[in-house]
Amino acid sequence: MQLTVYLAGQIHDDWRKEVEAKSKEQSLPLLFVGPQTNHERSDNVGKNILGEQPSNLYKDNAASDINNFRTQVLLKKSDVVIALFGEKFKQWNTAMDASTAIAMNIPTIIVRPTSLIHPLKELSNKANVTVESIDQAIEVISYIYE
Amino acid sequence: MQLTVYLAGQIHDDWRKEVEAKSKEQSLPLLFVGPQTNHERSDNVGKNILGEQPSNLYKDNAASDINNFRTQVLLKKSDVVIALFGEKFKQWNTAMDASTAIAMNIPTIIVRPTSLIHPLKELSNKANVTVESIDQAIEVISYIYE
Amino acid sequence: MQLTVYLAGQIHDDWRKEVEAKSKEQSLPLLFVGPQTNHERSDNVGKNILGEQPSNLYKDNAASDINNFRTQVLLKKSDVVIALFGEKFKQWNTAMDASTAIAMNIPTIIVRPTSLIHPLKELSNKANVTVESIDQAIEVISYIYE
Amino acid sequence: MQLTVYLAGQIHDDWRKEVEAKSKEQSLPLLFVGPQTNHERSDNVGKNILGEQPSNLYKDNAASDINNFRTQVLLKKSDVVIALFGEKFKQWNTAMDASTAIAMNIPTIIVRPTSLIHPLKELSNKANVTVESIDQAIEVISYIYE
Amino acid sequence: MQLTVYLAGQIHDDWRKEVEAKSKEQSLPLLFVGPQTNHERSDNVGKNILGEQPSNLYKDNAASDINNFRTQVLLKKSDVVIALFGEKFKQWNTAMDASTAIAMNIPTIIVRPTSLIHPLKELSNKANVTVESIDQAIEVISYIYE
Amino acid sequence: MQLTVYLAGQIHDDWRKEVEAKSKEQSLPLLFVGPQTNHERSDNVGKNILGEQPSNLYKDNAASDINNFRTQVLLKKSDVVIALFGEKFKQWNTAMDASTAIAMNIPTIIVRPTSLIHPLKELSNKANVTVESIDQAIEVISYIYE
Amino acid sequence: MQLTVYLAGQIHDDWRKEVEAKSKEQSLPLLFVGPQTNHERSDNVGKNILGEQPSNLYKDNAASDINNFRTQVLLKKSDVVIALFGEKFKQWNTAMDASTAIAMNIPTIIVRPTSLIHPLKELSNKANVTVESIDQAIEVISYIYE
Amino acid sequence: MQLTVYLAGQIHDDWRKEVEAKSKEQSLPLLFVGPQTNHERSDNVGKNILGEQPSNLYKDNAASDINNFRTQVLLKKSDVVIALFGEKFKQWNTAMDASTAIAMNIPTIIVRPTSLIHPLKELSNKANVTVESIDQAIEVISYIYE
Repeated sequence: MQLTVYLAGQIHDDWRKEVEAKSKEQSLPLLFVGPQTNHERSDNVGKNILGEQPSNLYKDNAASDINNFRTQVLLKKSDVVIALFGEKFKQWNTAMDASTAIAMNIPTIIVRPTSLIHPLKELSNKANVTVESIDQAIEVISYIYE
Repeated sequence: MQLTVYLAGQIHDDWRKEVEAKSKEQSLPLLFVGPQTNHERSDNVGKNILGEQPSNLYKDNAASDINNFRTQVLLKKSDVVIALFGEKFKQWNTAMDASTAIAMNIPTIIVRPTSLIHPLKELSNKANVTVESIDQAIEVISYIYE
Repeated sequence: MQLTVYLAGQIHDDWRKEVEAKSKEQSLPLLFVGPQTNHERSDNVGKNILGEQPSNLYKDNAASDINNFRTQVLLKKSDVVIALFGEKFKQWNTAMDASTAIAMNIPTIIVRPTSLIHPLKELSNKANVTVESIDQAIEVISYIYE
Repeated sequence: MQLTVYLAGQIHDDWRKEVEAKSKEQSLPLLFVGPQTNHERSDNVGKNILGEQPSNLYKDNAASDINNFRTQVLLKKSDVVIALFGEKFKQWNTAMDASTAIAMNIPTIIVRPTSLIHPLKELSNKANVTVESIDQAIEVISYIYE
Repeated sequence: MQLTVYLAGQIHDDWRKEVEAKSKEQSLPLLFVGPQTNHERSDNVGKNILGEQPSNLYKDNAASDINNFRTQVLLKKSDVVIALFGEKFKQWNTAMDASTAIAMNIPTIIVRPTSLIHPLKELSNKANVTVESIDQAIEVISYIYE
Repeated sequence: MQLTVYLAGQIHDDWRKEVEAKSKEQSLPLLFVGPQTNHERSDNVGKNILGEQPSNLYKDNAASDINNFRTQVLLKKSDVVIALFGEKFKQWNTAMDASTAIAMNIPTIIVRPTSLIHPLKELSNKANVTVESIDQAIEVISYIYE
Repeated sequence: MQLTVYLAGQIHDDWRKEVEAKSKEQSLPLLFVGPQTNHERSDNVGKNILGEQPSNLYKDNAASDINNFRTQVLLKKSDVVIALFGEKFKQWNTAMDASTAIAMNIPTIIVRPTSLIHPLKELSNKANVTVESIDQAIEVISYIYE
Repeated sequence: MQLTVYLAGQIHDDWRKEVEAKSKEQSLPLLFVGPQTNHERSDNVGKNILGEQPSNLYKDNAASDINNFRTQVLLKKSDVVIALFGEKFKQWNTAMDASTAIAMNIPTIIVRPTSLIHPLKELSNKANVTVESIDQAIEVISYIYE
């Protein structure tokens, strides 16, 4: 049984590749989807497609139109969400995607360092499982196939 | 027509009182609800009710059980959500509450300073209206009664 | 049993007052809600509350944020929708509100002149009842109380 | 990941073929569905199948039964809706299909000329993205696959 | 706690009055709603409001528009449905209303004579309770208040 | 695009075979499902599987458990419902299945002879399309593929 | 803001009275509802209303029809569920009511002795809060009003 | 038409293998899923993945996070649930899974010995079918394919 997994979270490093590589090693039948990970493309997609915008406010809003469109299409196709919070980039986007997934009844795993236990406590509590590493997240998904 | 308004966001200052006072001045028929605003009580409610916990992780989780219980009860009663993001306390809780409200089809207003335009762009885009001040948020709600 | 009725449609004449007056004559226990009927206020509410916008596109979008907020709050409170289409102002707004109401399972009455039978045929077909006059729409609602 | 795209909007020109051709050029894995595009067949399908109707009102209603049946079947299968509004044919149908899709939580792109910014402002505001050309609409969908 | 009870079923005798009288005797805090019970009015309401129709088919369809509108408004307000099937008038309407209520998760009681056990077996099985008399139906509702 | 079609209605003649044969002639990519059509098996399946029942009431209820189980599994898989009402067997089952499908937002076609126009008027009005023959029902579905 | 609280769990002792008395002491604006607490009446209500049944299986099923009817009516009216598990009576009913409430998105508190930690671990994990005493459950609800 | 069947219930014996073997004998096109059946792994999965926990309470809660995650993923993929209750292990888990499935509108079969008729009466009443043996459960599913 193949499962589609949405990888929500920061796009500043290549943690998604790590997830994909490690689940490949275990031959887990997973299809990974997620946001645009080219940061510049993600920020500029609004003006790239819709044209120059009058200020950063409008440029950001135009980009969000299209990023949210992408997320909504892919989240609706997903069986599981992994939402990773890193120490450096405290993105509200990730909280938004995880909360939306939970409200849509999609099983959700949060990955966060122990330094973020307190500020993420309510969201962790609503998610199904909270772990500290990508390895643990993959173990949780792998458990479905045991 | 009375409306119930959930005030999501930081509990470190008294912005909720400002909202209530200003809407009272305009005689808007609004009932305000929201999270526990006594910060210490909010953080300790788990151990206060459930007893001492083995570490901060468990103390936080116990508090979240009860804070999320409260939020779920009150959010389900709400017709409108105002979610305020301040410059100092970048709470994921607020993003979680706003995203949950949006997923529940509850009309949502975000209040945030211009410095947060970029990091909140996707969430602002999903909310109904984004404003920069409490006065503007009240104007938006007041518009329903014009 | 009081019912709340959303009056969707053009805001260029005072058809809503006619509905209210006629249902008052019959002592129907109805509470009427609807969009902002001051056309200038409706068009400018975005810039009035959020400030000047860079062009008409953005001004219109800002106004729509707030008009859609108002409609969503009130539509969720409504038991019935009357959507009136006139010959002069062929508003897509009205089709949007009626379609949204139908998708939300809110019983919907369409009022339209015979000249609009053909272009409105699919929407009329999805609504519960289509009539040609305000008097007929009130008769349909009044029938609930017989 | 193949996506099904419903193409809502006027059936008076061959814009759907343009969408299909251009997305084929980019090898996007899209399956396109939409309304009956033979205008005469669409208008007459009721009397063609159900028999002669007493007047245009009933003929139109009979056709709408079957056109709405078709749309409901196909919309429920769709992952994305593109709704095109042209300058010439101001169809309420298109607003109905787009609004229904949005209420069903199907991500929706509106294509409209700048001349229609004002009358479509509330609907554009509810859709995920509004663009001015078919090329832009395809770019938005193509962004999902980047 | 007042409950609203929809009384679905034949309109050829005055069984609804019996229900109301008997529940009044027991001082049950129930509000009863239901279809138009004036049979002639129910059959003619379409042409009464919408005008003469070309044939019985269209007259019946016009009446159904308005009868279904009424039922939808009232069913959505109801906490309980009692659906009565009599020996004489084997109405599909009643099966439709009961099935719709069950699909809407409204607790439903069926009243039917033993002669109808077999033809109603699947519907009885989906309803919460099936009884043979009005007295029993009232006992079931009365049990909520014990 | 293959569609699954549930064939609700009487099991006393072989109308389902006619539907299947005729849609095969037209090479429509349809998968047909429906109730148990062996009447004796359908009536006795409860006692066949669960054992002898104390009376016909309990035998019928046991059969309905299993017939309703089957219908629920298959209806949830269906894209379209055709519900046929014949002159001879006025089954409430068929009205139940059609009403349930409509409440589940499954597009529904009713087939009934003109003699049943009046008693089926409210259900016909809620269904998408009402036709008089199997040929017409197939034409309606075939229209999706034009 | 008055809240309705469903008290699920064993009916063998008077724990519900304790809940009511203690919340009255604190003047909490709560309306309590729950199952029939007269055990004999609860077990016999089926045969009391529907008549003698052929065996205990059918007597139990008849009682369940009516008990489930009552629960469904009252659970739909409830804002909060308290589900109490005692050491003596290990009722599946309570697990059923709690699970149904959770699936209906009703905030749920479980009360159970520490001896039941292990067998109730999955259900506790799905509920909002798990406590060991009635006093704690009331504290949790009382926290909403702080 | 392949169906996915979730096998809820005790993990202390190999009843699932019996189900699978017997349905294989009949060549039923069923895909079986279910909980972790290695009891020790199921109890320890929390500490295995998340690390040592401070006490059994926390160990159990950590295991439940992951067991509930697995169940939610698989239940959402399932077309049918078989929930088996044995005489020895009176698991609330099984009642929780069956109740959740019923609330999610997934057709559900309960298997239980006659000794459990009384304590399971309300849950049996809500399920589609209750049987006494695995053979009967398979017969019920097999009936879909007749």
